[in-house]
Amino acid sequence: MMLDLSAYLVIGPEQGGDRGVLATIDAAAQGGLTAVQLRDKHASARQLVNLAGQLRRVLAGTGIRLFINDRLDVALAAGADGVHLGQSDLDVEQARRIAGPDFLIGLSASTEAQITRASALPAGTVDYLGIGPVFDTTTKADAPPGLGLAAVARLCSGTALPCVGIGGITAENAASVWSTGLAGLAVVSMICGAADPAKATARLLVGRSQPVRSAAR
Amino acid sequence: MMLDLSAYLVIGPEQGGDRGVLATIDAAAQGGLTAVQLRDKHASARQLVNLAGQLRRVLAGTGIRLFINDRLDVALAAGADGVHLGQSDLDVEQARRIAGPDFLIGLSASTEAQITRASALPAGTVDYLGIGPVFDTTTKADAPPGLGLAAVARLCSGTALPCVGIGGITAENAASVWSTGLAGLAVVSMICGAADPAKATARLLVGRSQPVRSAAR
Repeated sequence: MMLDLSAYLVIGPEQGGDRGVLATIDAAAQGGLTAVQLRDKHASARQLVNLAGQLRRVLAGTGIRLFINDRLDVALAAGADGVHLGQSDLDVEQARRIAGPDFLIGLSASTEAQITRASALPAGTVDYLGIGPVFDTTTKADAPPGLGLAAVARLCSGTALPCVGIGGITAENAASVWSTGLAGLAVVSMICGAADPAKATARLLVGRSQPVRSAAR
Repeated sequence: MMLDLSAYLVIGPEQGGDRGVLATIDAAAQGGLTAVQLRDKHASARQLVNLAGQLRRVLAGTGIRLFINDRLDVALAAGADGVHLGQSDLDVEQARRIAGPDFLIGLSASTEAQITRASALPAGTVDYLGIGPVFDTTTKADAPPGLGLAAVARLCSGTALPCVGIGGITAENAASVWSTGLAGLAVVSMICGAADPAKATARLLVGRSQPVRSAAR
């Protein structure tokens, strides 16, 4: 099965809002969602496993991949498809050793040095890189300023790994971001804050060139 | 090798204070320390793995077991001896499945219902139970009132699993706590706040009956 990261939603209970996480994902799935990352820095492990289990049931049979942010143990306990690790999370080689080969690992890498280091890892250590913020964003309080499209394109071209861009992507600018060579666009607000998450997800995919750059997993 | 939990220190960077975590543990080791639990709800996974790695080097060859609070992934990445799980952390059966048989799992269980449930788990799921707070404590901000010695003794007698008591244990009351049948006493402040952590640890062990109730692991 190809790993399709093109429409990648990052979501947690706070972002689910009144509609809720499950209903948001269900709607986004109708619009072509391909991946979900559950991110919640406040929930207990037990709460995360329970919520991830509910997401798994919603996603069953859709082909949409489920990632857990940061917590590999939660991802494994919940039977998620993978984990997304930041630079201050578990080391990806240690994570790969714990999780085994049939598990997806994403890594945030937003500088040339981080991307060079990630690209030099043994094949099969990391499945994709997350690059951002693409544009200025207010969703993540401590995010640095946006890289801009030229820098994102340069970073993408520096690795054979598929890259997912995140940060400040909106209905207005999404189409322009595909020109950078990204394999996927990750968003929080564009889908969670939309009146119609299905339409927002479809909008995210406008401008995607076919075939998307992705690895068979 | 027997699992000796009799003198069990719970510590994190905040509790290490000016002396620091490593120096505190090194000193406590001289006083007979048998187990350490690294607990830090604020550190990143990367920071925890790094600190746990330093602890492993300090503990190498001492026989003192190293547990990580909550984060099974960190415990596995760092090569710790085990994980300590609370009631809102990972489910212990899921944790055992991920960690395999040669890994220690402790579980907080402070009510009759929790202890009954833990005791009914398949053999080898949980290695010990943590019971508390034994007395009123101010170390953990959200801790309920102390159970008292009679309740702790009753809870201990309700399970074949070794039990470690925690909460409000001091140099003055430690000896009295051994009468409850606990296999170990866990402390934060009694050792971390002591002018002489070695002496405080030795004091913790006064009154322990031999042999301690523990399982071969």
